[in-house]
Amino acid sequence: MTTPLYLPIRFAILGAGRMGAEHGLALVSLPDVQVVAVADPVEAAAQKVARITRAVRTYTDPLDAIHDPEVQAVIIVTPTSTHAALIEAAAVAGKAIFCEKPVAADLAETERVMRIVEERGVPFQIGFQRRYDASFVQAKARITASEIGQVEQFSATGRDPAPPPLEYLKVSGGIFLDQAIHDLDIARFLVGEVKEVFAIGDTKVDPAIATIGDADTTTVLLTFENGAQGVVQNSRRAVYGYDVRTEVFGSQGKLVMDATPKTALVRYGENVAMDHYHFFMDRFKDAYRAEIAAFVEALTEGRAPTPGARDALESLRLALACTRSLKENRPVRVQDVQATPERQVGG
Amino acid sequence: MTTPLYLPIRFAILGAGRMGAEHGLALVSLPDVQVVAVADPVEAAAQKVARITRAVRTYTDPLDAIHDPEVQAVIIVTPTSTHAALIEAAAVAGKAIFCEKPVAADLAETERVMRIVEERGVPFQIGFQRRYDASFVQAKARITASEIGQVEQFSATGRDPAPPPLEYLKVSGGIFLDQAIHDLDIARFLVGEVKEVFAIGDTKVDPAIATIGDADTTTVLLTFENGAQGVVQNSRRAVYGYDVRTEVFGSQGKLVMDATPKTALVRYGENVAMDHYHFFMDRFKDAYRAEIAAFVEALTEGRAPTPGARDALESLRLALACTRSLKENRPVRVQDVQATPERQVGG
Amino acid sequence: MTTPLYLPIRFAILGAGRMGAEHGLALVSLPDVQVVAVADPVEAAAQKVARITRAVRTYTDPLDAIHDPEVQAVIIVTPTSTHAALIEAAAVAGKAIFCEKPVAADLAETERVMRIVEERGVPFQIGFQRRYDASFVQAKARITASEIGQVEQFSATGRDPAPPPLEYLKVSGGIFLDQAIHDLDIARFLVGEVKEVFAIGDTKVDPAIATIGDADTTTVLLTFENGAQGVVQNSRRAVYGYDVRTEVFGSQGKLVMDATPKTALVRYGENVAMDHYHFFMDRFKDAYRAEIAAFVEALTEGRAPTPGARDALESLRLALACTRSLKENRPVRVQDVQATPERQVGG
Amino acid sequence: MTTPLYLPIRFAILGAGRMGAEHGLALVSLPDVQVVAVADPVEAAAQKVARITRAVRTYTDPLDAIHDPEVQAVIIVTPTSTHAALIEAAAVAGKAIFCEKPVAADLAETERVMRIVEERGVPFQIGFQRRYDASFVQAKARITASEIGQVEQFSATGRDPAPPPLEYLKVSGGIFLDQAIHDLDIARFLVGEVKEVFAIGDTKVDPAIATIGDADTTTVLLTFENGAQGVVQNSRRAVYGYDVRTEVFGSQGKLVMDATPKTALVRYGENVAMDHYHFFMDRFKDAYRAEIAAFVEALTEGRAPTPGARDALESLRLALACTRSLKENRPVRVQDVQATPERQVGG
Repeated sequence: MTTPLYLPIRFAILGAGRMGAEHGLALVSLPDVQVVAVADPVEAAAQKVARITRAVRTYTDPLDAIHDPEVQAVIIVTPTSTHAALIEAAAVAGKAIFCEKPVAADLAETERVMRIVEERGVPFQIGFQRRYDASFVQAKARITASEIGQVEQFSATGRDPAPPPLEYLKVSGGIFLDQAIHDLDIARFLVGEVKEVFAIGDTKVDPAIATIGDADTTTVLLTFENGAQGVVQNSRRAVYGYDVRTEVFGSQGKLVMDATPKTALVRYGENVAMDHYHFFMDRFKDAYRAEIAAFVEALTEGRAPTPGARDALESLRLALACTRSLKENRPVRVQDVQATPERQVGG
Repeated sequence: MTTPLYLPIRFAILGAGRMGAEHGLALVSLPDVQVVAVADPVEAAAQKVARITRAVRTYTDPLDAIHDPEVQAVIIVTPTSTHAALIEAAAVAGKAIFCEKPVAADLAETERVMRIVEERGVPFQIGFQRRYDASFVQAKARITASEIGQVEQFSATGRDPAPPPLEYLKVSGGIFLDQAIHDLDIARFLVGEVKEVFAIGDTKVDPAIATIGDADTTTVLLTFENGAQGVVQNSRRAVYGYDVRTEVFGSQGKLVMDATPKTALVRYGENVAMDHYHFFMDRFKDAYRAEIAAFVEALTEGRAPTPGARDALESLRLALACTRSLKENRPVRVQDVQATPERQVGG
Repeated sequence: MTTPLYLPIRFAILGAGRMGAEHGLALVSLPDVQVVAVADPVEAAAQKVARITRAVRTYTDPLDAIHDPEVQAVIIVTPTSTHAALIEAAAVAGKAIFCEKPVAADLAETERVMRIVEERGVPFQIGFQRRYDASFVQAKARITASEIGQVEQFSATGRDPAPPPLEYLKVSGGIFLDQAIHDLDIARFLVGEVKEVFAIGDTKVDPAIATIGDADTTTVLLTFENGAQGVVQNSRRAVYGYDVRTEVFGSQGKLVMDATPKTALVRYGENVAMDHYHFFMDRFKDAYRAEIAAFVEALTEGRAPTPGARDALESLRLALACTRSLKENRPVRVQDVQATPERQVGG
Repeated sequence: MTTPLYLPIRFAILGAGRMGAEHGLALVSLPDVQVVAVADPVEAAAQKVARITRAVRTYTDPLDAIHDPEVQAVIIVTPTSTHAALIEAAAVAGKAIFCEKPVAADLAETERVMRIVEERGVPFQIGFQRRYDASFVQAKARITASEIGQVEQFSATGRDPAPPPLEYLKVSGGIFLDQAIHDLDIARFLVGEVKEVFAIGDTKVDPAIATIGDADTTTVLLTFENGAQGVVQNSRRAVYGYDVRTEVFGSQGKLVMDATPKTALVRYGENVAMDHYHFFMDRFKDAYRAEIAAFVEALTEGRAPTPGARDALESLRLALACTRSLKENRPVRVQDVQATPERQVGG
């Protein structure tokens, strides 16, 4: 994409759930932006987000919003299973696209859709919001500026307060695609591409999760292309709240982004105590705003937004490698995970 | 005020500087709110904030915005010296009022204007934004719930990164009215009214500040009506950034709101280091949003907003008591500070 | 004193309570030291400390230990009321003296005894152990090296977990002499001499303390000779454990010694929690060792130990100034507190 | 061992280097203990520690100290290569034994010597001092008391400030036996026995370390017998100082022992900064004292000291499993590491 969009950029929000409302708020806080349409099968939900965003039109079919001639850009926050089709439709219609992760749970489908996006040349951003958290942004800048020298070890922990409903998990693609992918994407963002993974995992939170072939507690060892060593630990349940910690160790220092207290308030009673974040909407609230602002800025300035199609693809490939390693109980090379897995049996 | 305003509430922003833009952003993030007018003598500034807020009209005279028949509520962020007149005009016109502190540097003028506000029965909120910071909100709730028992000692530190220009200081009303008043207001918010103060202070940052009869470094001892003891330390300069720390000690525990790191990022090099906040716009960004949201919510629900006229008046009286104690080098009873000081000479 | 003592330095410990045992352990950890005698009216207590220190002799009368010809130095940890007489006897006998604070609760008596110590030229160290805590040692070094520039504001909080028995308080000399004196001494250590104080205080912990003319909760405002401003807050009770916090603010930075967690262990459950120190023996354990080591090192090298007679005197004078300010409800100049108070009536 | 030793327990210290002096100081701080002999080939070194410990005899041959009829217990802090022979001699002579880790770098030799210790029934303690650090002691107690429920994930980081000399590394047994073994032993202490390991590692600090067949930067994935998942990351160099962090995550909470600041002093300048520990002697100073105190207490009370022969053996086996996994680039079952490795080829 080489030319910026006309201002104000006119948006449609596809999906009027909680994230639709959040991204809507982010949009109305920006100058040079107008939300013209909100689409949701539930008309009342669409109306609610329209009221928040001062959108003048609502649709029950997201395709109608995509084809609204006034719409220049779409925010896709519909159920995961619809992402690929809506991205495809929007790309074909020449609209700029912001889509919540994932594109699809399937590598072949993801590759197919990302190819269309690239062929059509529409701006595309995937919702790895953590990349826009102030701590990670600054960590990236410091690493790039060689402040910690050569990166040698990476360590990330991601634990949710409680597992989602089993119905959700059944269609989630598994813990690596649904949850760990944020830590894996940050590993790629801060350190680089991963060469090989070795994963262990089982169910400690809820045995029902095993019955659907998924794990709820996992640990992955990563070998990066640049030789750095990494580990990622995930759990679907932390009784003390949302727990995200990332550490990058280098030859000249170390960066740590720990699960910080939520407010400045410290209470001294029987113990010294402080409050923690409850979940990602809480912890990464500002990052969600920042990623939308970055998307709009890229559109305004005619730059390609980031993270884009390649990150959507490679972070998915990495998560699939972890899944395979866990299933086959052996180290798996990331590049061996390809869209047509039957070809590489024995590879 | 007993009945809520019609929705959406239509606002005028008086003053299109940085705070005008900030409060404008807070307003557009709220449903049920419409910014219809922005007023500023500098037309370009007004246009800029109008673009951010999607306001349809701009005025160069704030009185015109006040008298715009569509306007139901005004946000006053004009220079301090104009606050009293604009509040008066808005109150007479029956508009709801949010005004940055202070109403006036003068107690008599403040009392006069607050009386008009009360007589006209218009909703009024003064911009002590710190009361809407998540830490202070929660501290207040915990104190009210007796979690730390009877409050016995209070301690607050407020240090700005660097002094404002001398021209600003000349009309600021002095360090207690301009800077310490935030800590003094929080003392009242968390502990209660103050009975007596004893203040010391001088100029350590810039001797020029002494030539205009002001201090830049002060320490105040407070005796609260309920018997609690307090101290407030202020400085116009902290080379390490904005420094706000508040501690409330009680018979059953202690609450501390310290100057927390700005991000979750901790850097390990020669030292363990983290980033700090640079100034109040940085530290209290969310509080500025929250106070506007609270103002709108009060208007929507037909409740009196808070902090209101009494807080504007009593926090000013407390700051004036500190000023007098410093000048006269003796303990001063807060209730002895009255609008017509000549009457109480010897009192 | 100009020549070092013969090695090993032979010590007598006067008083075989908890501090006698602690200081005994500190002594046996040092090379070039021999504990030859322990004195205590309770023979069994003396035997117990003798066993810890491998001392060969015990006495029931501390004067006998002082006059033991083999003894070169004495550690006085007897009840406070006996300190002055034992210091005098030891000084007259030419023995090096380490004495727990205070010398006496009375300024005239303290001056008299310190004069004898100086006339006899015996090494003398007073037990303000906080000066040997690693944090304070380093803070002093950094201030001396001008790392924070000119010191402008000082703030100290000292809160004990629970008040001592009323019987103890009756002979303690009051909260300023007994408890706050540690914070006041640190103020002198880190910032310099104090010119004037203004104190408020009353009883919030136990009304019985008021009946003996003492306070249990106090706040003092200090004006230092060098123009720095200070505050000291004390309480006899903190339900959350021992609470010592000291802050020194200067033109180029700030040093904070906060009440740190006791161990590296942080627990994440309903809250993020960590353990605190329970009391001074706990928090300043290493400082108690270090002050004894410093005393022995000074003796070994023939230097005057520190803090010495002047610190014993001036920190007491400062505490007495606070006492007077609280009683008379007015600012008190420290130099107006003299051994013969009747002379300065009206001064 | 069923009967306590006679009091005072008479010790010989074998090896008069830095650790000999440290353990000597720990011994003299304890009642009921007497150091009677110090042995070191360098007579002056032995004399120095004898002066610290008030020992009356020195030997140049440690065997002479072992056979000194007055000696009841020995502290072995000689070079690693002599440990096994001295343990054997002391066990045969019926003396209680405290030995710095490791017994031997070789599993067969370790098993042989530990068998002798058990047959002779002498008390034996291995110097995994970290088990006596206050944080780990308390963590163990809280885990045992089920405060964090079922342990599910373990994570440990151990980084030294700088690698030891190559000459030392050549005889160290490799990074897992020499450095990581402390983290591996703590994993066993806090979580339980390990079933399988998978290790990666290479040289990032100094290529010369590769030439002797060792690594300087490693990451290990652990599967515990009880199903918990673990990771251990080590590096021979951290420019910011000694870095030890351990986290235990369970179904009901989390315990973290992080690399805490060394003192309570926090400095606010360009950054908020605090001091860190430089190395293990610094960080675990109190733990070294505590392990000796525990050894003496066990001897005094006639209990078996801990950690003992089994821990010496099993932590070594675990370290050897990591070594093998790294060399063979495959998961290794810990029980497959046996004293006679040729038997289990293909196993």
